[in-house]
Amino acid sequence: MPPDTSAPRPLDLPGFHDVLAAAARIAPHAHVTPVLRSQSLDALAGCRLHFKCENLQRVGAFKFRGACNAVMALDADAAARGVVTQSSGNHGAAIALACGLRGIAATVVVPEGTAQVKVRAMRAYGARLVQCASTNQAARDATTAEVLAETGGVLVHPFDNARVIAGQATAALELLQAAPALDTLIAPVSGGGLLSGTVLAALGAGERDGRRIAVYAAEPAGAADAHASLAQGKRVHNDAPKTICDGLRADLGARPFALLRQAQAEGRFREVLRIDDTDTVAAMRLLWERLKVVVEPSAAIAFAAILRHPETFAGRDVGVILSGGNLDLERLPWAS
Amino acid sequence: MPPDTSAPRPLDLPGFHDVLAAAARIAPHAHVTPVLRSQSLDALAGCRLHFKCENLQRVGAFKFRGACNAVMALDADAAARGVVTQSSGNHGAAIALACGLRGIAATVVVPEGTAQVKVRAMRAYGARLVQCASTNQAARDATTAEVLAETGGVLVHPFDNARVIAGQATAALELLQAAPALDTLIAPVSGGGLLSGTVLAALGAGERDGRRIAVYAAEPAGAADAHASLAQGKRVHNDAPKTICDGLRADLGARPFALLRQAQAEGRFREVLRIDDTDTVAAMRLLWERLKVVVEPSAAIAFAAILRHPETFAGRDVGVILSGGNLDLERLPWAS
Repeated sequence: MPPDTSAPRPLDLPGFHDVLAAAARIAPHAHVTPVLRSQSLDALAGCRLHFKCENLQRVGAFKFRGACNAVMALDADAAARGVVTQSSGNHGAAIALACGLRGIAATVVVPEGTAQVKVRAMRAYGARLVQCASTNQAARDATTAEVLAETGGVLVHPFDNARVIAGQATAALELLQAAPALDTLIAPVSGGGLLSGTVLAALGAGERDGRRIAVYAAEPAGAADAHASLAQGKRVHNDAPKTICDGLRADLGARPFALLRQAQAEGRFREVLRIDDTDTVAAMRLLWERLKVVVEPSAAIAFAAILRHPETFAGRDVGVILSGGNLDLERLPWAS
Repeated sequence: MPPDTSAPRPLDLPGFHDVLAAAARIAPHAHVTPVLRSQSLDALAGCRLHFKCENLQRVGAFKFRGACNAVMALDADAAARGVVTQSSGNHGAAIALACGLRGIAATVVVPEGTAQVKVRAMRAYGARLVQCASTNQAARDATTAEVLAETGGVLVHPFDNARVIAGQATAALELLQAAPALDTLIAPVSGGGLLSGTVLAALGAGERDGRRIAVYAAEPAGAADAHASLAQGKRVHNDAPKTICDGLRADLGARPFALLRQAQAEGRFREVLRIDDTDTVAAMRLLWERLKVVVEPSAAIAFAAILRHPETFAGRDVGVILSGGNLDLERLPWAS
């Protein structure tokens, strides 16, 4: 694919055609994850639930979709210089795996204090890791800039990147294909790559198929910048995120924010539901027990939102994106 | 389906046509469970693994297949009298659900001391429970006989029943259809319904498709009556089963034994691999971590057998039947 030489725009936002292109591009590499159902959970929630199991995706999270799309879409010259990213978790592993599949170098800037299990995973997938002296964002950015300058590599941001968003959208695209009755989708929101991709897929597939799909988001009450940002019409910073959902502590990115504002103005994106960790842990326990899948808190929060707001989802066919299943199995939050 | 009026045989053993009939009969009710793969587990095991996730089946175990086949196959007169069974676990829940779907009565004879979580599950599916004063098999049988006499109901044995075996066989049938490259199958063995069904499916589908499939079994070293029975050519009793695999403590049934002996004589059923609980727990931990599914010890034992006997499975395409995912999430065996 040649580099984008079209006229510059304020932000390069992806469209539905990019989602379809991403689906084709990642098809040889990504799993088509199963959609699970449970009559007992349906009865509990008062609606028909269709769980899209991205915890069963490669690297254990939807992140592989966006990383794979971005890495595979690089032109040969850019690819030869390798990919650089910043991550303390799933995105780093996803970039490492995608680069490994393409046979190019991956460098991940990792803040000190990153969980050793995640460091090992990134190394196992073949990434070169560069430790960063602090968890401070400015320090991370400085180290990333140094690595980019030194390697000449291409930065693939974990969520504020059009191809990453288009890649994440393929989870909802598959779900909408597998469950034609869906009228509602819900996904967790952090940087917003998954959520804005879900909105893109819902709008595009909805228009194509003549159905109208309402999209909701779930966000930890202790890191609710997306809710605040959409309410205030400008991006707000998570000052001191406080939540068990370690995947949901980032601030909403510029591109996701732009896509969500637009969809909200059109009435297609409905609402960010703020959820307490106690509800998230209870929902996680239920998913393990009834659905028999290992999901992390950041994934269970979407189901928690449905249980907390039954009136919003009553009688609907709801697609729930279970975003990932990476967590420390030694310390389960209900076995404390 | 009319009652069987053909000439009496010493044991009514199911054939491949019964497996195909079972697949059609349960199709409206049972899930087609996903087949999961993991490159990291493949690398660890030295073979290509195809995990058939019966933990994601209704009631959380393959048991629903056999129970559903047996219940749905009853003629109207028999069905009207209801179904009776003995169970301390998954088979009872499966019979209760299948009877509920057909709208007929289910009575389960439950030994005192059965886990409350399982008692609640059976009640939630609508079964009538009859407590039995002891865990002694003779006492269970006496209570079951009383209930049968009182209700006029039909007994559906958890494994020593041709239609139950044919139903359990549909798991391997689906797996062989989903993964045409398979040359090997492995399943856990207890009463032998799942294992003998797996052998039936492998023989039948293998002959139909012109491929030869080797079947193995995994059994707890502390409850290894199936291994002993096949070695000695007669059924042996588990004197004091000692294993964490609570689903694998029963003795091999007469019909499963007959089917397995025949397949062993023909070289199609290979071997019962005896596995220590420590290996089973380690394999279970790996499946939770890498495959992101909740499996119980009785299911993980099949994967443990592959890791313990790499030379047997090296380079093969191995179908692994993950039989169930029902366990107490408060007490994980590695978090002691």
